Amino acid sequence: MQTKSEPKNLVWHHTAVTRAQREVLNAHRSMVLWLTGLSGAGKSTLAHAVEERLHRMGCRSFVMDGDNVRHGLCSDLGFTEAGRVENVRRVAEVAKLFVDAGVIAITAFISPFSKDRQYARSLFVPGDFLEIHCDCPLAECERRDVKGMYRRARAGEIPLFTGVGSPYEVPRDAEIVIRTDQLSLEESVDRIIAALVERGVIPEAGMLG
Amino acid sequence: MQTKSEPKNLVWHHTAVTRAQREVLNAHRSMVLWLTGLSGAGKSTLAHAVEERLHRMGCRSFVMDGDNVRHGLCSDLGFTEAGRVENVRRVAEVAKLFVDAGVIAITAFISPFSKDRQYARSLFVPGDFLEIHCDCPLAECERRDVKGMYRRARAGEIPLFTGVGSPYEVPRDAEIVIRTDQLSLEESVDRIIAALVERGVIPEAGMLG
Repeated sequence: MQTKSEPKNLVWHHTAVTRAQREVLNAHRSMVLWLTGLSGAGKSTLAHAVEERLHRMGCRSFVMDGDNVRHGLCSDLGFTEAGRVENVRRVAEVAKLFVDAGVIAITAFISPFSKDRQYARSLFVPGDFLEIHCDCPLAECERRDVKGMYRRARAGEIPLFTGVGSPYEVPRDAEIVIRTDQLSLEESVDRIIAALVERGVIPEAGMLG
Repeated sequence: MQTKSEPKNLVWHHTAVTRAQREVLNAHRSMVLWLTGLSGAGKSTLAHAVEERLHRMGCRSFVMDGDNVRHGLCSDLGFTEAGRVENVRRVAEVAKLFVDAGVIAITAFISPFSKDRQYARSLFVPGDFLEIHCDCPLAECERRDVKGMYRRARAGEIPLFTGVGSPYEVPRDAEIVIRTDQLSLEESVDRIIAALVERGVIPEAGMLG
């Protein structure tokens, strides 16, 4: 036993920076904004526009979407139901890490099934999870068809594409609904920022350096 | 076709906040500090101590270790070799997201195999990945045996425990080696902070508010 002769300065004490301390440093609270909606409804565009506004306000946020998750963290997952469930689970777990890190996490995934969104919500304490339904009629999403996915889905090339071969379960408990076919991007961002101010997550615009 | 009659304000432009913009806001660069070493070598304690020092300096950092990853993001993974490889892969991918978010990501996992650490390194551009070997003799780790894991491993209860039933491949290309049995925690933190200052990742202590 060397315990008695161990020099004092080699005793290592475990500490941890708390989320609350990070929020003080950032001068805003953290939470997750969970965007859900059909492909083509504008989730990713809206997510990045909110991120940009927050950044200009001096707030820390980070978008997770197909672009930076499907090719990385979830590159091993397919688009079967099991793959989608696991994708949502991992994204929710990582969002939780970002929230612990003091960052406003913004996720932009179709997340078509209520039970998966409920599972994601269940990882957070009430008030930390804001579900935002990017609501756009299927016909309009299909008309835009930015990535040509609907055309391919209709041609039978993507069997489980949401809205065509697989259902989108419309959120019943979304805190915010954005009609992305009726509002401008600016107006949509305004709505979300206002909700964050109202909930005391961020200070009013102009209050931060 | 409604394109011609579509109001201008409904055209949604895609933007994104860049890592460089976040680094300007934070007044420091982001990168990953990849701590590796035997169980009981002090990885997690050192990681949190570095995080605390960075926080006091006004820098954004975040620790990923067994406590917040094994029960969340990687709760589906076992401790087989395949499970460990996938654990390292996911942690590296999430660290990459944190680096993109402008945060100094600090990971604290045994990560015993060279090829897994090399894989993690390969996800980052040179200079963004700093491998830190928390070097402590096995005998000393086993003497401490903070979690009683070595005793259980020796009793055959944990067949693949690193250092007992499974090898730890000593890093050959670690940028920093910390002899955690010889330095105090404070001295160890100093070394890492100095390396970050030297590399221009963070300003010198006292340069930030």
